[in-house]
Amino acid sequence: MSGNTGEAVTAAVLVIGDEILSGRTKDRNIGYIAEYLTGLGIELREARIVPDVLGEIAAAVNALRERYDYLFTTGGIGPTHDDITADGMGLAFGLPVSHHPDAVEILKSHLGDRLNEARLRMARMPEGAELVRNPVSNAPGFRIGNVFVMAGIPSVMQGMLDEIAPTLKTGQPYLVDAIEGDGVKEGDIGGPLGEIQRAFPGVMIGSYPRSRDGSFTTTIVLRSRSAEDLAAAKARVTQLLGELRPTGSRS
Amino acid sequence: MSGNTGEAVTAAVLVIGDEILSGRTKDRNIGYIAEYLTGLGIELREARIVPDVLGEIAAAVNALRERYDYLFTTGGIGPTHDDITADGMGLAFGLPVSHHPDAVEILKSHLGDRLNEARLRMARMPEGAELVRNPVSNAPGFRIGNVFVMAGIPSVMQGMLDEIAPTLKTGQPYLVDAIEGDGVKEGDIGGPLGEIQRAFPGVMIGSYPRSRDGSFTTTIVLRSRSAEDLAAAKARVTQLLGELRPTGSRS
Repeated sequence: MSGNTGEAVTAAVLVIGDEILSGRTKDRNIGYIAEYLTGLGIELREARIVPDVLGEIAAAVNALRERYDYLFTTGGIGPTHDDITADGMGLAFGLPVSHHPDAVEILKSHLGDRLNEARLRMARMPEGAELVRNPVSNAPGFRIGNVFVMAGIPSVMQGMLDEIAPTLKTGQPYLVDAIEGDGVKEGDIGGPLGEIQRAFPGVMIGSYPRSRDGSFTTTIVLRSRSAEDLAAAKARVTQLLGELRPTGSRS
Repeated sequence: MSGNTGEAVTAAVLVIGDEILSGRTKDRNIGYIAEYLTGLGIELREARIVPDVLGEIAAAVNALRERYDYLFTTGGIGPTHDDITADGMGLAFGLPVSHHPDAVEILKSHLGDRLNEARLRMARMPEGAELVRNPVSNAPGFRIGNVFVMAGIPSVMQGMLDEIAPTLKTGQPYLVDAIEGDGVKEGDIGGPLGEIQRAFPGVMIGSYPRSRDGSFTTTIVLRSRSAEDLAAAKARVTQLLGELRPTGSRS
């Protein structure tokens, strides 16, 4: 990583594609990128999904790139007529879109005589874009300003993200601890947990309920940049959960 | 459904929760709602994920509710301190938030003496909100204006969505057909597929590539409100794919 500063480094994700909004394809990229960035100490602050419509792509790109340190997009960089992400980026940045010579070379060297006009579309990028290497299927993504444009296919996106990661400035990662409620319900813990949160403003305490075997339980997640605060808050939460854990069949 | 008009009915989804943006919890609600709305003939046009921050929730709610016929939110309506969606809605609509008497009654009747101050938080709603019944775990969601506020736990959200569906106006559903490329690559089909798209402006033709056993293939999805156009476009795509399907080991 190129730097590890004390300040928060922030990011957004933009998923581009009608197939996600129709529900035909289920997005798996947001969750992957979220976890990946958290591991780097970069805070994902927002995610959006927009259709394959130029104006929608450009508007979302501009809203997100101006507000966060980084924007990562997925989808719409393939060879078919509905792949219009490069044009969306050109519109957002006010830059002409043309075939990037280095991208054309990569496609030529890997595709040989299979490089037709459709596949050549994959070399189209706004002027000034830098290539993002694609270790999975060769056709590159690109970076323009603080925006990284990646493929939509999860395996390809993941390969590109590995290429991008070393170039990112990163923040101080949060220390995280999770405590399983083991059948403790949110409603039983809510009051005292709020008191613990107020006592530890430097610790973010989240309660994440889920259903399990037809009943509900919750997991308490604590995040902090201070190991000391985290340990102190965890001790309080652990004590609270110990007092409240069900011993019998209470539902 | 209360109506089936010829015009498009549009919607957005807003997922609220730090745990989704940290990657700790993987969202499963957007994909479910997307597919559900498509089945009703309602077009999901945008989705966003925002953190548990009042101003962020309110800004996203206002951006989305003004632009689309419906907004569906998930998350942040539980009993703990980090459940602030009701306050976010109050801020967005400029309405005070208080305990809804009917919601208090529901909680009382199901929880009895387990109804503490934390659980009572689940009855807080902006003034004028109407309850959305929760057939799974009782604590209701609510509707305010064109916004439906639902739980984040998938099973609970799904139960609420079933309650909401009969109250929605619905559009004419798209007819959908999908043709498997069986090893045809996007780059081989891209040129002629674009020609077919231009010949059938009333059909939306999407190409959705994926990796399969280390190689790539694509699925062509056609959508139209005209059965005739859909059949004609499908015939052209089927012919094209038949010409291009690999017969040997070409990779």
